[in-house]
Amino acid sequence: MKQETLDEFRERVSQDNFAHLLGIEMDEVRKGYARASLLIENRFRNFSGYIHGGVIFSLADQAFAAASNSRGILSLGIEVSTSFISSARVGERLTAVARQVHSGRRISVYRIEVKSTSGRLVAICRGTVYQKTRKEIPSQ
Amino acid sequence: MKQETLDEFRERVSQDNFAHLLGIEMDEVRKGYARASLLIENRFRNFSGYIHGGVIFSLADQAFAAASNSRGILSLGIEVSTSFISSARVGERLTAVARQVHSGRRISVYRIEVKSTSGRLVAICRGTVYQKTRKEIPSQ
Amino acid sequence: MKQETLDEFRERVSQDNFAHLLGIEMDEVRKGYARASLLIENRFRNFSGYIHGGVIFSLADQAFAAASNSRGILSLGIEVSTSFISSARVGERLTAVARQVHSGRRISVYRIEVKSTSGRLVAICRGTVYQKTRKEIPSQ
Amino acid sequence: MKQETLDEFRERVSQDNFAHLLGIEMDEVRKGYARASLLIENRFRNFSGYIHGGVIFSLADQAFAAASNSRGILSLGIEVSTSFISSARVGERLTAVARQVHSGRRISVYRIEVKSTSGRLVAICRGTVYQKTRKEIPSQ
Repeated sequence: MKQETLDEFRERVSQDNFAHLLGIEMDEVRKGYARASLLIENRFRNFSGYIHGGVIFSLADQAFAAASNSRGILSLGIEVSTSFISSARVGERLTAVARQVHSGRRISVYRIEVKSTSGRLVAICRGTVYQKTRKEIPSQ
Repeated sequence: MKQETLDEFRERVSQDNFAHLLGIEMDEVRKGYARASLLIENRFRNFSGYIHGGVIFSLADQAFAAASNSRGILSLGIEVSTSFISSARVGERLTAVARQVHSGRRISVYRIEVKSTSGRLVAICRGTVYQKTRKEIPSQ
Repeated sequence: MKQETLDEFRERVSQDNFAHLLGIEMDEVRKGYARASLLIENRFRNFSGYIHGGVIFSLADQAFAAASNSRGILSLGIEVSTSFISSARVGERLTAVARQVHSGRRISVYRIEVKSTSGRLVAICRGTVYQKTRKEIPSQ
Repeated sequence: MKQETLDEFRERVSQDNFAHLLGIEMDEVRKGYARASLLIENRFRNFSGYIHGGVIFSLADQAFAAASNSRGILSLGIEVSTSFISSARVGERLTAVARQVHSGRRISVYRIEVKSTSGRLVAICRGTVYQKTRKEIPSQ
């Protein structure tokens, strides 16, 4: 089977069903790195009036999944720990940046930061993936 | 201000905007305990075809938030660590159960398990909340 | 090479250098389960007078490592998240129990609880291991 | 009661019982920052021959506790998640650096990295503290 290029991978990521449902946009994908953003809407509130933790996590997870799969190696998230630092506000745009911290043969680790446009830290995650195969996406 | 009863709290939780968007149902809320469920749909897939981690997390977080706020004390999730154990499948119903593990004056800890109807473990979380106030919901 | 039996494994675990330094005792090892205990001493205090988090973690990690390696499959701890619930006290004996929550081909997950003799919860951990090989310890 | 200066705090940290038992040295303490180091010895091995996770964690926790208490506010570690990245080796010196990521009124978050002298990443932690009081250490 022909290997997927990084451009083809970006194209595929941009057609993510769930990201589309929330309105998450993939702003950048490079090997071991991804940046995604999301406009916080009223429909994302939970019963206390705060933005649902699941929304913040979904944005972070989208960047994490894109970054960790950007090498063409099927990477499954097995553990993610998240610190919720400040509340998100309706009307602001949040950006999640995922960066590879460690790249191993089977296990790799990523750090994800979610910030508001003004730079306020909203959440920090650390995510671990298990890599099923070792096929690498060729650089373009 | 009149205190909210557990029935009023259940009513409020059931009007959660984001849970409504995904289709999460609150099946049971007691003090320190909550159970929520969600039918896994095609629109929850991510770009790899797997169900998005954000969907699993959102379900778990909904049970966690309901359980931790069930005492009438505003409880903010500050840390959640999640182990993703097995993939969710389109068409199955997942249930998340959140139970209090430790109840402190300011800090409490919950365990959340997400399972399929057949009992397959999909994810396990541990969540920590910071409690802002000490008002208790009166028992019914 | 002859496979190690569970009895031989128990014998090897009991000769752990670091556990010996602290005084950790392995009370029970079965497949996917281990129990270890430690008498809390004055030399374990940190600069604030509390028992050092590293002592609590070491006890939990000892049970985790014994449980996860009890099948004869070399299992490396890759992620451990710990909730510190209550302080340990000099003179009390703490017991850590590690139980397998999920057993996968490459990734397995354990839950570890650290309690005082009186049943007070001191810490809870969740640990993830990566299994390098698939050799199983024969049952006795 | 007279407030403790940062110098007095450093002095107190350097008399930590458990750090002394392992040989952990506090190399630097500033507000919201601390650096500690430890020579890896044979007595730190576990039953598999690897350096015990409790040793790595103890070093990280020492830096975390020093950094988080460096403001003169009693800070209790409530959650620490740790990724074990590579094995430590007997004879090498490990350094743990703890940095404040978020400083809140009651809850603060730290990132801790443990590296070998050659720069190899051994472990990464994220730790959360609950701050009991609001007294600040005066700057010198």
